[in-house]
Amino acid sequence: MQNNYCIIMAGGIGSRFWPVSKTECPKQFIDILGTGKSFIRSTFERFLPVVPPQNFLVVTNAMYKDLVLRHLPELNERQVLCEPMRRNTAPCIAYAAYHILSKTADANIVVAPADHLVTNETEFQRIITAGFNFVSQPENSNALLTIGIKPSRPETGYGYIQTPDAGCPNGQVTKVASFTEKPNLEKATQFLQNGRYLWNSGIFIWTLQGILNALNTHIPQITAVFDTGKNIFGSADEQAFINQNFGSCPDISIDYGVMEKSPHTYTIPADFGWSDIGTWGSLFVHAAKDNANNAVKGNAMLVNTQNSVVNVENGVEAIVQGLDQCLVAFSGNSLIVCRLADEQKIKEWVAQLNAKKQ
Amino acid sequence: MQNNYCIIMAGGIGSRFWPVSKTECPKQFIDILGTGKSFIRSTFERFLPVVPPQNFLVVTNAMYKDLVLRHLPELNERQVLCEPMRRNTAPCIAYAAYHILSKTADANIVVAPADHLVTNETEFQRIITAGFNFVSQPENSNALLTIGIKPSRPETGYGYIQTPDAGCPNGQVTKVASFTEKPNLEKATQFLQNGRYLWNSGIFIWTLQGILNALNTHIPQITAVFDTGKNIFGSADEQAFINQNFGSCPDISIDYGVMEKSPHTYTIPADFGWSDIGTWGSLFVHAAKDNANNAVKGNAMLVNTQNSVVNVENGVEAIVQGLDQCLVAFSGNSLIVCRLADEQKIKEWVAQLNAKKQ
Repeated sequence: MQNNYCIIMAGGIGSRFWPVSKTECPKQFIDILGTGKSFIRSTFERFLPVVPPQNFLVVTNAMYKDLVLRHLPELNERQVLCEPMRRNTAPCIAYAAYHILSKTADANIVVAPADHLVTNETEFQRIITAGFNFVSQPENSNALLTIGIKPSRPETGYGYIQTPDAGCPNGQVTKVASFTEKPNLEKATQFLQNGRYLWNSGIFIWTLQGILNALNTHIPQITAVFDTGKNIFGSADEQAFINQNFGSCPDISIDYGVMEKSPHTYTIPADFGWSDIGTWGSLFVHAAKDNANNAVKGNAMLVNTQNSVVNVENGVEAIVQGLDQCLVAFSGNSLIVCRLADEQKIKEWVAQLNAKKQ
Repeated sequence: MQNNYCIIMAGGIGSRFWPVSKTECPKQFIDILGTGKSFIRSTFERFLPVVPPQNFLVVTNAMYKDLVLRHLPELNERQVLCEPMRRNTAPCIAYAAYHILSKTADANIVVAPADHLVTNETEFQRIITAGFNFVSQPENSNALLTIGIKPSRPETGYGYIQTPDAGCPNGQVTKVASFTEKPNLEKATQFLQNGRYLWNSGIFIWTLQGILNALNTHIPQITAVFDTGKNIFGSADEQAFINQNFGSCPDISIDYGVMEKSPHTYTIPADFGWSDIGTWGSLFVHAAKDNANNAVKGNAMLVNTQNSVVNVENGVEAIVQGLDQCLVAFSGNSLIVCRLADEQKIKEWVAQLNAKKQ
């Protein structure tokens, strides 16, 4: 366990949860579900039984450094790696890998977004442990393992992982046949019936050498940038080096840049009550509902309203009447009322609203 | 003109415009239409050409005294009559009449709510002047005159005045055949076609003696209360007397208590762009609309939304999507989203919400 590292990716700005999640305090720092803990806090605690506290790294935007330390006071500030700008997941993961390399050459790493929901933490820890065990075997040192979630509905909001055979049991590592993009409903329905498809959770397990080799092979533009500062990682000059050079990395995801190209990809089927809570709709699926199937947070009186999400911050009172399958959310100085079916466009509307301000 | 008095009734709590209008600052003190002036300010200015400033009286709740003086700095504080509790329009009008009686026995009085909209002020002043001229003729000293508005639609939110004949011209006083309650849509449609019906504006013109006689005849319980303090009105003890005795008055409207019973009722047909702006829907009728027939006030971005009212206070930004014939309003710490068709229930919902607080 002393070689286990956890990289928490916490740089998102969460605009799909506007206005509750905003650039100033995005989703990972909020207790959207009302569990009493922010997403990043829950994520940290979920990994604590399998990763020592000093082996956590949080990669985030520089502006969130203080927020991270406030939510995870167990970390020292050198465990918070600050990106000067957003560059997608591949440069984020590479940065953390080079930082770990400055301390040890022998590490098993789990990489996870800061803002997922897991309801069965014991099963989660069993799966992560199985993944660590797999990659730490010498013959698997180049394996790139993705947690694959057993699908329970024809979800069109997730990417899928195809396995060679149907019915691979939970916790048993298998080769990846292919990664697929988010499907349309027809395809998602086929995937669900087919039995060979898993949801791509975006949670990865690999060794330090495995991911460095893969980055070097598939995105050498990134390793070239970091190689120039190889001796600087872990030193007092690391942040200055990152500030100067991070922007030279291409903006590319680890999925597109590495996983879809590598021959060493594996998946481990799992079922631990997972959601990426990427949208108000997925929150709705997981939240407690009232008798009319509404998910309500805050002081709201609902009249003749069904199948809706109402989320108003403390100190605000609301009357909501006559809605069906809608979202009503108020936070800070911002209000949204929209149809849940159209929530994928929230990001776009917020961008338009912000553009009008300038 | 020196005998003309104006009583502005400004004691309402405007809960039908919740949350923009609240008990702390009700509708009459708000610029809901965005004209640049509050309703009470507009009402005052509308009467100024026909009533000297020292002859205005505003009757309101004690808690609104400072608000009245802030909106009407031309008045001195003895022109603001404070009711210790709400007792409907008859006691309100009686209080003001006794106050005027302490100064003069010879007054023509116009009584108007503080929160109506008039778009043609010149025509308004012509009608009020015609009304003053009528009641100031000695043979009409007991006449009780109501401004009757030529109806333009089968409105179910107003009471109606039936006249003896159809087609009475604007500005010409005629007897009232009967007052009617708010009709249903079928009846309102008949009224509109019939040509003998006018909307009851709630604006009254009479002489001081005329209204005192009528109150004495039809609601002697009220004049009995005020007669006990006849010598106190206009003195430094008036407020103390009112505070002690006002609560003994029955809670009764001038319409029900006097107008529906008196044989001396008259009306003067008028058409000066009037609305009582009693509801969000009537505001909608009078507000400027965007291309999708929405009335929008504040920083709101509307997407695929039609025939709706969106009203958010300064400093709040809103995204509203996918609504039709709805109201979205935010003010203070309160939000409402509802169907405009159901807005008559807002009062009731607000009462329920407030009951939950206790």
